[in-house]
Amino acid sequence: MTTVGILGGGQLARMLALSGAPLGLRFLVLDSTPDACAAQFAPLLEADYRDEAALADFARRVDVATFDFENVPAESAQWLAERIPVFPNPRALSVAQDRLAEKTLFRELGIPVPTFADIATRADLDAAATAIGLPAILKTRRLGYDGKGQFRLRSAADVDAAWAALGAQATTVGLILEGFVPFQREISVVAARGRDGEFRTWPLTENWHESGVLSASLAPASLEVALAEKAVAYARRVAEALDYVGVFALELFLKDGEFLANEMAPRVHNSGHWTIEGAETSQFQNHLRAVLGLPLGSTRMLGQACMLNWIGAMPDATPVLAQASGHWHDYGKSSRDGRKVGHATFRADTPAELSAALQTVGRELDRELQVAPVIDRLRG
Amino acid sequence: MTTVGILGGGQLARMLALSGAPLGLRFLVLDSTPDACAAQFAPLLEADYRDEAALADFARRVDVATFDFENVPAESAQWLAERIPVFPNPRALSVAQDRLAEKTLFRELGIPVPTFADIATRADLDAAATAIGLPAILKTRRLGYDGKGQFRLRSAADVDAAWAALGAQATTVGLILEGFVPFQREISVVAARGRDGEFRTWPLTENWHESGVLSASLAPASLEVALAEKAVAYARRVAEALDYVGVFALELFLKDGEFLANEMAPRVHNSGHWTIEGAETSQFQNHLRAVLGLPLGSTRMLGQACMLNWIGAMPDATPVLAQASGHWHDYGKSSRDGRKVGHATFRADTPAELSAALQTVGRELDRELQVAPVIDRLRG
Ligand SMILES: Nc1ncnc2c1ncn2[C@@H]1O[C@H](COP(=O)(O)OP(=O)(O)OP(=O)(O)O)[C@@H](O)[C@H]1O
Ligand SMILES: Nc1ncnc2c1ncn2[C@@H]1O[C@H](COP(=O)(O)OP(=O)(O)OP(=O)(O)O)[C@@H](O)[C@H]1O
Repeated sequence: MTTVGILGGGQLARMLALSGAPLGLRFLVLDSTPDACAAQFAPLLEADYRDEAALADFARRVDVATFDFENVPAESAQWLAERIPVFPNPRALSVAQDRLAEKTLFRELGIPVPTFADIATRADLDAAATAIGLPAILKTRRLGYDGKGQFRLRSAADVDAAWAALGAQATTVGLILEGFVPFQREISVVAARGRDGEFRTWPLTENWHESGVLSASLAPASLEVALAEKAVAYARRVAEALDYVGVFALELFLKDGEFLANEMAPRVHNSGHWTIEGAETSQFQNHLRAVLGLPLGSTRMLGQACMLNWIGAMPDATPVLAQASGHWHDYGKSSRDGRKVGHATFRADTPAELSAALQTVGRELDRELQVAPVIDRLRG
Repeated sequence: MTTVGILGGGQLARMLALSGAPLGLRFLVLDSTPDACAAQFAPLLEADYRDEAALADFARRVDVATFDFENVPAESAQWLAERIPVFPNPRALSVAQDRLAEKTLFRELGIPVPTFADIATRADLDAAATAIGLPAILKTRRLGYDGKGQFRLRSAADVDAAWAALGAQATTVGLILEGFVPFQREISVVAARGRDGEFRTWPLTENWHESGVLSASLAPASLEVALAEKAVAYARRVAEALDYVGVFALELFLKDGEFLANEMAPRVHNSGHWTIEGAETSQFQNHLRAVLGLPLGSTRMLGQACMLNWIGAMPDATPVLAQASGHWHDYGKSSRDGRKVGHATFRADTPAELSAALQTVGRELDRELQVAPVIDRLRG
């Protein structure tokens, strides 16, 4: 009997537990909140990630540890890794936690990135705004997610406001200024790498964000083969450089036929949720297979899939369930503004079928704006 | 927040909970054993099905109740149904619990059945053995499963032994004598009926048993269209007669181009496990959708699927996981002779691919005999 420990008890941990159950696995989730939604289906150890007694208890009770949350303190991951197997390894985690470290790595690996600069002081910001040019985005190096910890600078007049908003964090989590990329499309590579180095990717996914939060994903992303191969090669390069084990996502901007790497998520990723119904093996099960040293499952997809995120509150399930292609995912969370509370996946054999389902559901749920870019893309 | 109560906490309850989680459901499992395998993923109320205080507690804590186990006492189901919605309804459950009642119903509905007779006394057995003719099978009317509570009579010389083995149960669970059917094939219809009467079936499944226990299933069963339609019509007739809500299986013998109904299982069924990966919606999720009055999901299947049961102990997972088509299901049970501890499902686009996977796995796991009949059938 193998017990997998998961640091973080949100929807990713929940879906990991649900998809790992058929492997005969048990789970233990470490989270600081008693109502962590994974705790509805897996035992919870309620504690702070820095609580060493809790970490010791956790290490005793699990055979291997992994993450639902990339912002687990690097020292906690390191402490655990000295006692039990931890995948991905703490170095990979710490690079992916830090926008400066990951962009630096990408650049070293020959992967194009937006222009960026480390910002420690107000003077740095002034200099970088000039060097990089505006518009640009000031972001915290660490602890950002769902577009949080970001400030967009449209013109020089915004520098003061940007510094007022985020300047205090320069000495805590660090800051980075990134040139704004007027991209045409956003693409992610969801990839799995096994303990033995086996590397697989699911078909690439196109993503649409709304206020910095993922709104919709479509797979397979329609891309020229050579371009798709380049994205996969980038992901492989990153995974190998970090000796990464498990699933991760590489987020790419596509601009004028070229990719620029935005960031990597060292965990299963929202843009891979469609794999539950849309692929032979889901990202969740393959993450567990990788972490446990089991053979990776086929990442082949069946037809076309679109994922719609539900943010803030769950809509009515009925219109989605009434579609032959519709699959519902309610994370069992309470409603809260901006919170990811669930998603729906639509899987169909043809773009036309998928489009029709999205059109109906968009209308019935009053979410035409959310489905519109996906329908546009499916039209080709 | 809706909580579904499940009477019985075995692998069916476990798979119900796992597939119901995405609907945002909570579960409560009632089982008399503390190590019921569903309890690894759902809260357990440990009590006897007849314990009225426990039933009252259960009724208070759930919104609707259903079954993982068809042999829940009919009075317990009735007691609950007077307090909370219970699906399938207790009458359907009680008919399906009783081989005599179900065969009588089938016959009333014009569904062919093997010859059978109610056996209350030794004299009844003698008379029925003559009337029905031998070989025949003496079965308990209630509480039989996985071929338990059965005695095969090959010749008149076996009547004494049969009575010695099962006679005492004539006054407790009742007995039935059934003519032995020298069938060519065994087929099951796994069907779902919603609260609103909507009726759907998955593609028919062919099944192979080993010592009375399901060993392998293959879907879609290769059958002439008219024959397949007949099987579906039988299942619909039974469901409508019982005002059945939820998933059930109708097990049929195919003999000389004609179906004879063996029994119905008033629950998700082992021969429908392949629907987890092989169909757009699994039997588990559709059972919950039916019970909750939600729209039923598409029962369309994708390609070809074969399920192999693991009885007694789990084999090595690696050869199955190494197949692109392979999916593993370990129920988290301890090993025990004759116990269903897990299964594997293989899903492929073509019979040839499926056959190749089965051949490899059969060889690597030393289970050539288990896969042989499926491979034979795939050869056509
Ligand atoms: N340099 C940039 N140029 C243009 N748009 C950007 C840039 N950086 C971020 N964005 C936009 O904001 C979105 C979220 O940014 P980013 O991925 O950096 O934030 P995050 O908080 O880590 O988000 P997530 O949790 O979704 O990964 C991006 O997907 C993109 O749409
Ligand atoms: N009348 C019969 N003639 C021929 N074979 C029979 C007959 N009844 C049962 N069998 C064989 O035994 C198997 C199990 O019988 P049956 O379905 O009655 O038992 P069970 O204990 O309810 O099994 P399960 O739990 O698998 O449904 C059948 O699938 C069939 O292979």
